[in-house]
Amino acid sequence: MGLVVQKYGGSSVADAEGIKRVAKRIVDAKKNGHQVVVVVSAMGDTTDELIDLAEQVSPIPAGREFDMLLTAGERISMALLAMAIKNLGHEAQSFTGSQAGVITDSVHNKARIIDVTPGRIRTSVDEGNIAIVAGFQGVSQDKKDITTLGRGGSDTTAVALAAALDADVCEIYTDVDGVFTADPRVVKKARKIDWISFEDMLELASSGSKVLLHRCVEYARRYNIPIHVRSSFSGLKGTWVSNEPIEQGDQKVEQAIISGVAHDTSEAKVTVVGVPDKPGEAAVIFRAIADAEINIDMVVQNVSAASTGLTDISFTLPKTEGRKAIDALERAKTAIGFESLRYDDQIGKISLVGAGMKTNPGVTAGFFEALSGAGVNIELISTSEIRISVVTRADDVNEAVRAVHTAFGLDSDSDEAVVYGGTGR
Amino acid sequence: MGLVVQKYGGSSVADAEGIKRVAKRIVDAKKNGHQVVVVVSAMGDTTDELIDLAEQVSPIPAGREFDMLLTAGERISMALLAMAIKNLGHEAQSFTGSQAGVITDSVHNKARIIDVTPGRIRTSVDEGNIAIVAGFQGVSQDKKDITTLGRGGSDTTAVALAAALDADVCEIYTDVDGVFTADPRVVKKARKIDWISFEDMLELASSGSKVLLHRCVEYARRYNIPIHVRSSFSGLKGTWVSNEPIEQGDQKVEQAIISGVAHDTSEAKVTVVGVPDKPGEAAVIFRAIADAEINIDMVVQNVSAASTGLTDISFTLPKTEGRKAIDALERAKTAIGFESLRYDDQIGKISLVGAGMKTNPGVTAGFFEALSGAGVNIELISTSEIRISVVTRADDVNEAVRAVHTAFGLDSDSDEAVVYGGTGR
Repeated sequence: MGLVVQKYGGSSVADAEGIKRVAKRIVDAKKNGHQVVVVVSAMGDTTDELIDLAEQVSPIPAGREFDMLLTAGERISMALLAMAIKNLGHEAQSFTGSQAGVITDSVHNKARIIDVTPGRIRTSVDEGNIAIVAGFQGVSQDKKDITTLGRGGSDTTAVALAAALDADVCEIYTDVDGVFTADPRVVKKARKIDWISFEDMLELASSGSKVLLHRCVEYARRYNIPIHVRSSFSGLKGTWVSNEPIEQGDQKVEQAIISGVAHDTSEAKVTVVGVPDKPGEAAVIFRAIADAEINIDMVVQNVSAASTGLTDISFTLPKTEGRKAIDALERAKTAIGFESLRYDDQIGKISLVGAGMKTNPGVTAGFFEALSGAGVNIELISTSEIRISVVTRADDVNEAVRAVHTAFGLDSDSDEAVVYGGTGR
Repeated sequence: MGLVVQKYGGSSVADAEGIKRVAKRIVDAKKNGHQVVVVVSAMGDTTDELIDLAEQVSPIPAGREFDMLLTAGERISMALLAMAIKNLGHEAQSFTGSQAGVITDSVHNKARIIDVTPGRIRTSVDEGNIAIVAGFQGVSQDKKDITTLGRGGSDTTAVALAAALDADVCEIYTDVDGVFTADPRVVKKARKIDWISFEDMLELASSGSKVLLHRCVEYARRYNIPIHVRSSFSGLKGTWVSNEPIEQGDQKVEQAIISGVAHDTSEAKVTVVGVPDKPGEAAVIFRAIADAEINIDMVVQNVSAASTGLTDISFTLPKTEGRKAIDALERAKTAIGFESLRYDDQIGKISLVGAGMKTNPGVTAGFFEALSGAGVNIELISTSEIRISVVTRADDVNEAVRAVHTAFGLDSDSDEAVVYGGTGR
């Protein structure tokens, strides 16, 4: 019986009833002989309400103060959760990110964890307490300012604490039963995955699966912390994410050829039209984008038209960064020497992920055949060793996902719809 | 141009509009060349909402976690206030009580400030920032846990910071224009006091005046920090509370003979009936009360009836402590040997306060004459060097206050009603 880190998202602690339900679950883990450390997000809509208040006093809230504001959310949920646990006759203490030793850099609103020094948490659990830690927040190493970790930050807090405390497992409780072979809102026959490797999970996360964020999985892989994604609303086993397949009964769960189909409609496509087809042009373009601190995803350069000596370069990026990218390119127009820019936010990306791809040469062909069979036109293609992604029209995405899911035999036998939602932060 | 500490109560920052209004006022002080440190309470009803949430998850919220919860309130208001100031083009940084160096003992929910180490605040203002500090909260010296200071705590935070930073003045902004000669809700002709000594203010505060709490004034007197109580809704000068009279034009404001009339209907009276009239009886009674950690106010022992050798002992205490006191006395019944207990929560206290009493022997007589003229019956009397208090029926209090106010020439010429409310925490 070792130490367990549990993380509960905002939807699991949305109201007093939710907090009491979660408290019972935590106490059950404690009764089973585990030391328990809990990471909790802000209650339901708290964060949105705080953001709304901030916008009322200032159109562009400042980073440092915005973090100070948002961290009030976890302070409320963690204190209430500790009270609810104490009300069940068990000892609990709540700790802010700073008190828990979550040390970050100084990039407000999306800080990165540099170190975790969980001395107070260790002492608290060794004294028999259940330790409740505020997710999503830390304290900056240099200035000792309060920071927040950005979207999905509470998951990262949980994994980082699990690593620092050498926990047996990090349980991520959410409002879905686990990681699915596709988004169950799109594919009714999506199946819950019992086990998935860190690598496949990383590809799914970066391809649009929202259950776990890339950063959290990356952290877990680096420190080899098994993650168990499961629902706080049911008692079901969820999805294990780890290096080695889990055992079920007498045998290990086998590595699937294909883990799942992910999709993403949050990106836009920028095409730089009429770029001189000479060395160094792409470098100038992507330096301009990088200087504007924009992360891009896929990049494709068309074959140059021999008659003009000009080519087009397309790339995808989050829609939220579109305006910034266009502005950055316009400023660099003379240096690059392109003719025009095209911006298209009606695109979608479909990705097939699975380590089995490496040794199953038919996968790529099967993927394109499925898309073709569904009448879906492909605009861009990008591949990694264990993933193949295409860009299509946004309107085609759902149909494409279903076709691919069926083609690779991922459909479950059951027809039951699964309720699916966000995981909070 | 020195350093000014300003404190704004919850009613002054009740919503986004209030926060923006307060931000402008703060910026004005900064523009006038002052270094500005601001202490802020939680917004309007935030604290009540948090308490309501706590009660939903646990009937008896635990001290440590309850403090963690409540301190979310100031975190929200201070971050928003800093954003609003930055939006006006000035630099601002918010700090929690812990970050501001407010060190307290470990008595959760009503901690006392032990020390203030405002290094970060000093650095922040020296760098040109306006520093915003969370009122009402600190961090415990031994355990490094978050604590709250109890009712009126934000005022104490402001005065303690002013002392630690050697500020020129501590401005307490509230929703009234200052300290009045009586509660304007009761006495329409109450006058705003321009200056009042620490001593008189202490007596008013302990006699029921709610504008400043006793602890805050006591702290200001100890470190000789002038307090300026004024409205955040008007530009008017308020009331100065200090050792030495302020100057107005060419001359000092004169020490008034009578500062004001305070009243208090929050107390109850306990009478221990039929106590043997022998040495040590009172000691046993009040030891039982003290052991129950109950603070009492007035004490009166009746003249013993010669025929029985028994006497009655009465004392007043906050109504909220009534149940506890009765229980404590019942437990000690055998040791004390009384006949019965009487509990009366329909009492009120009227107090006349003024350093001039010491040298004006007619004051006491005038006080009783005014009460007699208003037909008010006196049940208990208690005096200090600069205060005289009586207990009456609660129903008589308002009439008694008005009669005394008029008798001592405190009525203003103006008939204008003054809006009066609480000061938050």
